Order: sequence, then structure tokens, then C-alpha cells
Amino acid sequence: MTSKIISKEDLDKLETRYRAQLINSISGFKPINLIGTKDQNSLTNLAIISSVVHLGASPAMLAFISRPDTVERHTLENIRDTKYYTINHINSNILEKSHQTSARYNKEQSEFNECQFTHEYMKDFHAPFVKESKIKIAMKLVREIKIEENSTVFIIGEICFISLPESIIQIDGHINIEEADTICGSGLDHYHKTNSLGRLSYAKPDAKTRWLS
Amino acid sequence: MTSKIISKEDLDKLETRYRAQLINSISGFKPINLIGTKDQNSLTNLAIISSVVHLGASPAMLAFISRPDTVERHTLENIRDTKYYTINHINSNILEKSHQTSARYNKEQSEFNECQFTHEYMKDFHAPFVKESKIKIAMKLVREIKIEENSTVFIIGEICFISLPESIIQIDGHINIEEADTICGSGLDHYHKTNSLGRLSYAKPDAKTRWLS
Repeated sequence: MTSKIISKEDLDKLETRYRAQLINSISGFKPINLIGTKDQNSLTNLAIISSVVHLGASPAMLAFISRPDTVERHTLENIRDTKYYTINHINSNILEKSHQTSARYNKEQSEFNECQFTHEYMKDFHAPFVKESKIKIAMKLVREIKIEENSTVFIIGEICFISLPESIIQIDGHINIEEADTICGSGLDHYHKTNSLGRLSYAKPDAKTRWLS
Repeated sequence: MTSKIISKEDLDKLETRYRAQLINSISGFKPINLIGTKDQNSLTNLAIISSVVHLGASPAMLAFISRPDTVERHTLENIRDTKYYTINHINSNILEKSHQTSARYNKEQSEFNECQFTHEYMKDFHAPFVKESKIKIAMKLVREIKIEENSTVFIIGEICFISLPESIIQIDGHINIEEADTICGSGLDHYHKTNSLGRLSYAKPDAKTRWLS
């Protein structure tokens, strides 16, 4: 494979869409989730997001990055107004319609209806879950941090509860999300299934890590 | 599949390692990268990180989350002191030794040596790249943000340059990282190869997205 070096100066000269494709591909594989929200008039919203990141286990917190200038703004407004949202894993059966939620629907249109998802409510939680998803997380806003450099917003949330198939919980607490057919993404529009290579043992300086059976 | 609901109260009662396994698994698939740094005495460091996230394409910025209380602290210290670091994709050939970098080596030990990676330097850039990696990114620290809720640190960096195989750059700028054998992870220790499902067309409200050929 012949290597190519792309400098900052090269990047600056690229056409906008080409640069967005390239830079969005370079961070590695991404989690792809649907964020469900509901505004104060009970209008729901659903947005595909590729930036959910683990922030901590105690308290259990996840974060994601929202761009204020895109379709995600309805999501951001609803989270700010109501404090609650859901994170729903995407499986291969709902991948095409999940991607379709990224279209610029009007504020009055719910992506649940436009993209044919079923609302699900659990435990009196305000925000809607995606019934067709297998792993669903109820989230409460903790805080948002404005990223001054490009006006994105880092949304920090606390996990209220998790709904998932009992069979994918392993004995040590690991969740086998591949067994739930959760997919992953790369770039802006490329999707992938996964094939497990296995789990590696806890690494110690004086011993080689080994594959767990 | 029988569903199970795990509440915040259930989570709080879990044994620490079990909870860490569970919460680390729930956000979806993760990018797995090696962060390369060098301190002011020319001692290098290499750390596996699963939290790199795309922050913006113009300027081209990536971020990651560092925990101050783990092996990653040498990485964090070096980034603070020198401002420069590298992000290197992990392929299946170097997966086991990449995981091994998470062992608690002493500050005087370089994971490059302990885990048998080859230093690579490019374009007079201060921080070392991993020669065995196929996709390598030179980064400059922009800013760090302390996450008060759990003392993690959100590290924002700007891309200085990228080195990658020319053959995986598609005509529209998309980088096919699967072709470079980049792997992904889930939870704390589970690794996966990917199988492309394809790319979906830009979604519009009045048309169904379709698979690109």
C-alpha cells in the first residue's frame, strides 16, 4: 500500500463536502445511535448520531456532540427544554430508516412517523424510545459544554435506566452488543456489521495478554 | 429475546468491575486507537484509547476523553507538556500488543519498547507515530476541558497532517478504513472486525435513501 500524506494546508484547500467526508472517516469506527426526544407539545423527534461516547461508570454517564446548525437542532432544543432523552442502538433491520432520520424534516414533522418507527414509553419516562431497537438507554441531561472553536455542543447525560435483552449480558457484566445485531459506522454514510475477534484479558506489565475463551 | 430493565438504583448497587464492564459496553461500538507521545526527555509513551470522536471538519478537529487516574496519565502529561501527539489506527495484526499497552507500566518504561512497536517520525513532528499502523494522524493540542462530574478530561486537538494508504481514499473523500483492516471495540476488552454493509445516499425528506453502488 502506497502511503500518502495530507497536510493541514491540503485539507484547507479541499472542497467542503470532500473534506467533511475525509475528516469524518479518519477517527475510526463510530457508534451509531438514535436519539429520541419529545417537546413540551408532545411532538417527538428522532435523530441519528455517531458521537456517543462513554464518560464514566460511577455515576454512569454518556456524552455526545451536537452540531447546532443541522437537523440535530430539534433534538438539542428538546433536550434543553425537557432535560430527558433516549439513546437507542441501531440494528441492521432498521438501518436504512435510521439513516433517513438525517433528512431535514420540518420541526412539525416527527421522524418517528416520517421514517416509520414505533414510539415506546417505559416507566413514566418523558422521552420516547424506539420500539424496534433492542438496546435502549434513558438519559437525563447533566450539563452542556459549548465548544467555542466550532460552536458544537458537548452534551453530558446521566443514565436513568437501560433496557436490553437479558441473554446478551455476560457473567462479568460485559454486554455483547454484536449479539444484539448492533451495527457501527464510519465516515458520514458507511455502515458495517461486526465479527467478534474475542475478548482480551486484563493487561499487566509482567504478563502477555491472552484471548479469553 | 427477553428484555431486562436495569435501573439507576440497580447500577449503583453493582460491584465496581461489573458496573464498569456494563456501562462501558452500552454506548455502542468504539474506535480503538493508539495515542503516541514523547516527553521533554525524549521518553516515548503509547496508550490505547477508545474515546476518539470527530469534532469538526473545518478546522479539522478530533477529541478524546482521558481519565487522569489511569495509565493514560503519562499520555496526558506529555500532551500538556509538549502540545503534540499522534493518533494511530489499530489493525488486526497489532491488536494484542495494542491491548497490552493498557498495562500499568512505570513512567520510565516506553510502551513502544515493552510492547514491541516501532517508532516512526515524519515531517519533523515531535510525537512518535506507530510504524505498524496504516492510518496515522498528527495532532496539536487546542484546549482541554475538565469534566467536573468525574474528573475526566476532554482533550481537543487539531489535525496537523494525516498519513494513510492512497488506495483507500474514495473519489468523494470517504476513507475506507475497513480496507485498511482497522478494527473496532466494545466494552473494555472486546474487539471486532467489520463487514461493510455499504454506503447510504444523502437523506432528503422527500425521497428514500438508497444504497450507493
